[in-house]
Amino acid sequence: MASSKLLTRFKSDKLSVLSRSLRRPILPALAGYSWDGGRKERGGEGLKWGAAAAGAILGLSGLAYNLRRTRLIAEGAVEAPEQGAGQRRKDLKEFTLEEVAKHDSIENRVWVTYKEGVYDITDFVPLHPGAEKLLMAAGGSVEPFWAMYAVHLNNKVVMELLEEYRIGNLDQDDVEHHRKQMKDSTDPYGNDPARLKVLIVNASTPFNAETPLSILTDSFITPTELFYVRNHLPVPDVDPKNYELEISGLGLKDLTLTLEDLKKFPKHKIITCIQCAGNRRAEMRARKELKGLDWKGGAVGNAEWAGARLSDVLAAAGFNEETNPAVHCIFEGLDHDPAMHPYGASIPIEKASDPRGDVLLAYEMNGEPITRDHGFPVRAIVPGVAGARNVKWLSRVVLSKEESDSHWQQDDYKGFNPSTDWDTVDYKKSEAIQDMPVTSAICSPSPGSQVLPGELEVKGYAWSGGGRRIIRVDLTADGGKTWTQASSLEQDTARHSRHWGWTIWKGVVKVPEGCPNVEVWSKAVDSSYNVQPETFENIWNLRGVLSNAYCRLKLKVNL
Amino acid sequence: MASSKLLTRFKSDKLSVLSRSLRRPILPALAGYSWDGGRKERGGEGLKWGAAAAGAILGLSGLAYNLRRTRLIAEGAVEAPEQGAGQRRKDLKEFTLEEVAKHDSIENRVWVTYKEGVYDITDFVPLHPGAEKLLMAAGGSVEPFWAMYAVHLNNKVVMELLEEYRIGNLDQDDVEHHRKQMKDSTDPYGNDPARLKVLIVNASTPFNAETPLSILTDSFITPTELFYVRNHLPVPDVDPKNYELEISGLGLKDLTLTLEDLKKFPKHKIITCIQCAGNRRAEMRARKELKGLDWKGGAVGNAEWAGARLSDVLAAAGFNEETNPAVHCIFEGLDHDPAMHPYGASIPIEKASDPRGDVLLAYEMNGEPITRDHGFPVRAIVPGVAGARNVKWLSRVVLSKEESDSHWQQDDYKGFNPSTDWDTVDYKKSEAIQDMPVTSAICSPSPGSQVLPGELEVKGYAWSGGGRRIIRVDLTADGGKTWTQASSLEQDTARHSRHWGWTIWKGVVKVPEGCPNVEVWSKAVDSSYNVQPETFENIWNLRGVLSNAYCRLKLKVNL
Repeated sequence: MASSKLLTRFKSDKLSVLSRSLRRPILPALAGYSWDGGRKERGGEGLKWGAAAAGAILGLSGLAYNLRRTRLIAEGAVEAPEQGAGQRRKDLKEFTLEEVAKHDSIENRVWVTYKEGVYDITDFVPLHPGAEKLLMAAGGSVEPFWAMYAVHLNNKVVMELLEEYRIGNLDQDDVEHHRKQMKDSTDPYGNDPARLKVLIVNASTPFNAETPLSILTDSFITPTELFYVRNHLPVPDVDPKNYELEISGLGLKDLTLTLEDLKKFPKHKIITCIQCAGNRRAEMRARKELKGLDWKGGAVGNAEWAGARLSDVLAAAGFNEETNPAVHCIFEGLDHDPAMHPYGASIPIEKASDPRGDVLLAYEMNGEPITRDHGFPVRAIVPGVAGARNVKWLSRVVLSKEESDSHWQQDDYKGFNPSTDWDTVDYKKSEAIQDMPVTSAICSPSPGSQVLPGELEVKGYAWSGGGRRIIRVDLTADGGKTWTQASSLEQDTARHSRHWGWTIWKGVVKVPEGCPNVEVWSKAVDSSYNVQPETFENIWNLRGVLSNAYCRLKLKVNL
Repeated sequence: MASSKLLTRFKSDKLSVLSRSLRRPILPALAGYSWDGGRKERGGEGLKWGAAAAGAILGLSGLAYNLRRTRLIAEGAVEAPEQGAGQRRKDLKEFTLEEVAKHDSIENRVWVTYKEGVYDITDFVPLHPGAEKLLMAAGGSVEPFWAMYAVHLNNKVVMELLEEYRIGNLDQDDVEHHRKQMKDSTDPYGNDPARLKVLIVNASTPFNAETPLSILTDSFITPTELFYVRNHLPVPDVDPKNYELEISGLGLKDLTLTLEDLKKFPKHKIITCIQCAGNRRAEMRARKELKGLDWKGGAVGNAEWAGARLSDVLAAAGFNEETNPAVHCIFEGLDHDPAMHPYGASIPIEKASDPRGDVLLAYEMNGEPITRDHGFPVRAIVPGVAGARNVKWLSRVVLSKEESDSHWQQDDYKGFNPSTDWDTVDYKKSEAIQDMPVTSAICSPSPGSQVLPGELEVKGYAWSGGGRRIIRVDLTADGGKTWTQASSLEQDTARHSRHWGWTIWKGVVKVPEGCPNVEVWSKAVDSSYNVQPETFENIWNLRGVLSNAYCRLKLKVNL
């Protein structure tokens, strides 16, 4: 079955309802599994998470056994067996693609194919935290989905578990047919744009890469090609001539705007820092393992954006602040998963509709059309707010009483206290991250550098969300016994409460004599006099977001 | 000379200019002296600060000696001599009040009287950080001023230093005359309103008192009579029939509004928490001594306020956001010092003019006319912002390119890093506190209570400035090894970014077995996911403001 047919079938209303009803994790114990970017692609830890996730996806029929086994595998205590999934087994019956296709729901039982194997995974569906994702493959091949959720591919644990659901072989003729189709189908990431090699890649599909700290603060405006990229799905390839933006929802008259229409609104420019909610996660991970891409402090950048103000566009659609009952403004992107579910997020209506909120439907970044990786042709710019709400490749703006029901609004990008673990986490009880807290990082010297005792110049960035300006950066090289203040704060001249841009700071600390190691700390203070928390210990959270404790840079001292 | 005459004389333009030119501290080394409420009236520490301040006010002619001596006195190393200032000394010449009055400026030399003594303090004037305050007394008695700045009275160190400037006795006839005048002159605090005895008084003149923590969170709305009072000067006694509010400044047409005029604007109600910037200072002081009233956590309250929106009033005066060049909105109170300098503060124009900023010219508190202690008849309510900017007994609203030049805007209510001391502090280089950072305090059980091992209910308040809602309060009774989350957050339903009210929270911690003491910590998180800093150590500042580290409640465990 061609993947296009699959997609068409699963866009039916019936499945859509089922899918929605299953969108929330069925079992709290498994709710930790996130299919977007939780996995990591580097070395051992990546495999560990891959294995843990895979265990959750294609588990054994007994949940407890599944969890125990997954944990054992994740801890390296179990040898994963040889790979053999999807190979022809002479002892099993044959099924045609047509027969498989009938088993496309819980009621009809859920069958899938993988290479030459046929599997009845009905009993596993309720154990799968992203059950609706699994159901998308019902009645056909899992392969196009695994091309997207690449954690499954070449994963021995996944293969082993899959084989436990094996019921037969695919009809030999259909295997040929299927092989041809798979060959024709495109790698969903195959059309992603080219990127500079200087970016540090934390995941390649979807593409997630950060700016090296060694160059990050060399320019107050981060050059577009060096700006960190945090994608959740393949990059859409949009023909600007055909681009349309839908404005709709509560209390609005529907508008459909072309790119040219959007450019007819007054053009508004702002400088804003955008930062991934998971930036500096690597520092929190160093305290205790957690789940998420290993951002080292470079998932942040500062650019000038230009476009129409969202408040102007909403006004054109008849928005009335006094009477409109909407509570949230939902954004949807043109990037989508195999079931055509788009990336989505929402922001409070007060932020969206306030001209002072400076939310843009932006079509320019640093004076040029936005590049594909950053949302061409139109991106939501929500200054002061976590990167995840700055939706790229924007296709829809919808006013609603409810937040976006997307995975990324509901089951990701939320904070928890340090005692919340994957057994107790309840995403419903936490608030979606919007405005970001105050943070700072030291970018120069580099970690582990050799320095001399005496005065040492250090440099870095600081930022706070919600339009709060950085008013002070404190520095110490003796564990807080003596603090100096950064002597230079480079920042733009935006007005009070609309200070969206970051601050590049420089200062001098005194490296003590006679000690072979030194730790330099930075602590930023914003215009609400909020300060960074001291350590990661008491802000640690299982997703590694909001990682804004003091930056503590370890250096060697050349005595 | 009657004090009224004194006041009249010193309101001359000439002195006003001199006064202004001297308003800023002359010597950075003395800039730490603050005459408003820095002193404390309790026990030994009060005297210590009193002595330190006094040393700065009436010093010896050699600054170094003065500073050294003051420090020694402050440290208790020097015995203050017997009091004898102002007593008749047979070895000295007599001067009439008329002769003294001629010495009313630096050019004419500065003479003052105290009781029967005459003093030439010209050489001390440049050493006095509040030089203009000292010059107000030039040519007459210092006594009416000392009735206001009561730190001088009955202070042995002040008396000793004063006597070093002694040049003569006051003419015997004039002494009788002067005594009569002083008897007639009123204690500036004599007309302050009556207060409930339940308030914890941290200073009586000016009156500064807080709500006991044991009752603070018993009501979501703090009853007016229990609301903390932080006055900087005597309480004005305003006849509402004669009350006038002046609206003026950059880009405005002058308006003068009576109370009735103000009530013609649309009446707007908000619930807001007001908190002194020095609230919870006692906890910071416990870490290391500092200067300021010893607020124990009760300098905060939550009330409903009603009045005209400042944005509406500014609009009526012709304010135009696009063209108005003002940067700050200055408030002046009817409370004033002996030279008729009013209490003053300013806020950013963006806060003042934005209807979403909810700044009120309030005439009602909790549904009744505002009481005298809280600003009758009209008070600025600046929600989300430090109490000091919520100017009471409001007389003027002035738009300006500059901040208020008042002491309290320029040389108080600012933050510094922990290494800033009274030798290095430079108020010009710090930002005036506006929006307050996230904080919380545990109000029940009381500190030192006996509790049982096992589950313990704790209760308290949390708040963040800038309209940020409290989204979580984390609690621990084992030093952060395990955190629980407050299960109940009582708060109002204000909209996003306008959440001015506080949160009353309740939660349960587990008191460990087998340990005679336990410390319960609270840590609030606001809607920008800012969290409280862990300890006071790294946010300590010499004025003890912004004291928002974790609350750490010590309890005894009944084993």
